[in-house]
Amino acid sequence: MVGAGQLARMTHQAAIPLGQTLRILAESARDGAALVAADVVIGTHTSYEDLLAFAAGCDVVTFDHEHVPTDFIRSLASAGHAVYPGADALVHAQDKAVLREALAKAGIPGPAWSGVSTGEDVVAFGAEHGWPVVLKVARGGYDGRGVWFLSESAAASHVLDPDRPYIVEQRVPILRELAVLVARSPYGQVSVWPVVQTVQRDGICVEVIAPAPHLSEELAGVAANLAVRLAGELAVVGVLAVELFETADGLLVNELAMRPHNSGHWTIEGARTSQFEQHLRAVLDYPLGATTMTAPWVVMVNLLGGPAGGMGIDERVHHAMAQWPDVKLHLYGKSPRPGRKLGHVTALGSDFAEVRARAAAAAQYLHQGGHP
Amino acid sequence: MVGAGQLARMTHQAAIPLGQTLRILAESARDGAALVAADVVIGTHTSYEDLLAFAAGCDVVTFDHEHVPTDFIRSLASAGHAVYPGADALVHAQDKAVLREALAKAGIPGPAWSGVSTGEDVVAFGAEHGWPVVLKVARGGYDGRGVWFLSESAAASHVLDPDRPYIVEQRVPILRELAVLVARSPYGQVSVWPVVQTVQRDGICVEVIAPAPHLSEELAGVAANLAVRLAGELAVVGVLAVELFETADGLLVNELAMRPHNSGHWTIEGARTSQFEQHLRAVLDYPLGATTMTAPWVVMVNLLGGPAGGMGIDERVHHAMAQWPDVKLHLYGKSPRPGRKLGHVTALGSDFAEVRARAAAAAQYLHQGGHP
Repeated sequence: MVGAGQLARMTHQAAIPLGQTLRILAESARDGAALVAADVVIGTHTSYEDLLAFAAGCDVVTFDHEHVPTDFIRSLASAGHAVYPGADALVHAQDKAVLREALAKAGIPGPAWSGVSTGEDVVAFGAEHGWPVVLKVARGGYDGRGVWFLSESAAASHVLDPDRPYIVEQRVPILRELAVLVARSPYGQVSVWPVVQTVQRDGICVEVIAPAPHLSEELAGVAANLAVRLAGELAVVGVLAVELFETADGLLVNELAMRPHNSGHWTIEGARTSQFEQHLRAVLDYPLGATTMTAPWVVMVNLLGGPAGGMGIDERVHHAMAQWPDVKLHLYGKSPRPGRKLGHVTALGSDFAEVRARAAAAAQYLHQGGHP
Repeated sequence: MVGAGQLARMTHQAAIPLGQTLRILAESARDGAALVAADVVIGTHTSYEDLLAFAAGCDVVTFDHEHVPTDFIRSLASAGHAVYPGADALVHAQDKAVLREALAKAGIPGPAWSGVSTGEDVVAFGAEHGWPVVLKVARGGYDGRGVWFLSESAAASHVLDPDRPYIVEQRVPILRELAVLVARSPYGQVSVWPVVQTVQRDGICVEVIAPAPHLSEELAGVAANLAVRLAGELAVVGVLAVELFETADGLLVNELAMRPHNSGHWTIEGARTSQFEQHLRAVLDYPLGATTMTAPWVVMVNLLGGPAGGMGIDERVHHAMAQWPDVKLHLYGKSPRPGRKLGHVTALGSDFAEVRARAAAAAQYLHQGGHP
């Protein structure tokens, strides 16, 4: 696995019972996955030489992020390495313009959009589709970075980097955000987990509720079918996360990720097969596991680094474990920094309000050592 | 963790979400845990120098087996290392004579027994308590090795190694074997999992059923209380597995283990907190996690190496995953050899007969590539 963040760390954890040893390409020996994996190569995905040396002896190469250049992926494949997802699939998770074109071609609904390169382009789009608009760098944004919500006056004065591609999208009135995860194997087997609701704050996912409350069976079916179809049409291998907007008129595709995704962390305890195990099964072309839920309600809350000072994280962990012995804690081995994703907690149960409150309370305590 | 077999491998897996990096003392880089852990020291528990070098920088030292000499453990503790379980506790899992004496002193029931050193001693014991008897090496036996069921004539001719301590036990008519696992922290918190039934074949545990079917609430309570009391009286820190005989007259203690144990592998998916996570919480003096079951029935079946020839293990894994997508597979990274514990499978559900049959069928297929 190229990349050594928390996704690789949790994938390594899932590799162990499968009898696999996950090799990790890490930029630093202090990266979350490098702290726990046996087979760590230090290097960077921005160097083809590093990637090639890393791939030697791997059964298959996969990724914990979308930042490996497609040219490198194509070269690795030409050199005889199995690389999943492949370049032609992954580009849809790398480039929002390519994704929007593919969705339009497939007749899958998304917001109105256009490629833009100047403030004037943005103003022209807004004049046609209404204000505000959403300006995005087509490549390289994440967790709310590289995204701007612009009024007409802001758009006129917004300076676009001439070296970066951008797209602008209509700002759609949304009811909430959903996500649906599927996994697909090279053989073509596809399996889908229940649709979840994701809650964002400042562009960062903070809470995931499985299944999405009050979602009609019809819309759940639409979402699942859409994800299964996309996985097949884009020839994805591995986990595909489809982020959706629920609107009064139905579902719109927001973004894709082709790897285990924050919206699927709940599956570690909450589904018979976790997204991490399934990603490995998929890229290794094993049959996929059951995606049934293990409890009626599962809520995951991200643990973000709290304000500096006060009680240390280890003391908070002690208190939280004592108070919530049935909340599952996942720490990523990172040093705390305000706002940084340090881990997540998962609560499971049959009473939605209780499960949600329990997960929130534990995460809040871990965040700042007090009660919400 | 001293020792690098499957118990250390699964403990490492549980350490990852706790934000811990488990250091492993392995005899070989090919040991199951050494294949997956980041921090592996090559050495042996029979060398105090190796143990001392290994312990440097560890927050706490614990074990995946009972074979570390108590003298070494005492020396490590004297040198300032936190070692759990401590020597005074662990000796009860190392030496069957010491255990029997402690149980007798605590008034906890076990079979009639005696220390013996000659065939004549065994014959004398049998004359008093009836035939056959069970002869055991007091130290070093496991998985049925070092245990003999002897008739009067066999006892008379059985040659005892004058350099090894032995005990002889009355062969008690048993209804079945049970096990109860507890964990205890240095702080003194104790938590207990539901009592399970264990099924042995040729002295090796092959199946574990959670909870033990048709066990009366009264006996379940007796077993739990007995284990909690033993953990406290012996000052165990970490997981304590108490193997029990159910007889017409109640429960008898058979053996103890002070580490994660085969009878607790079902807890990985089957309990809110697995025995591996709980062992780490206990030895690190974190509050213990909830031990509630995640499904009404959980059955674990050991995967033993099958006869040589035929379908390879990887092909069997493919077929088994396809046929039983909801059975959880755990492989230990060992090369197959007939009779060797290569892994285990766990099935969960609400219909006992179905769950048991599913686990057995998957394990049988993995064992020899066919159906039972």
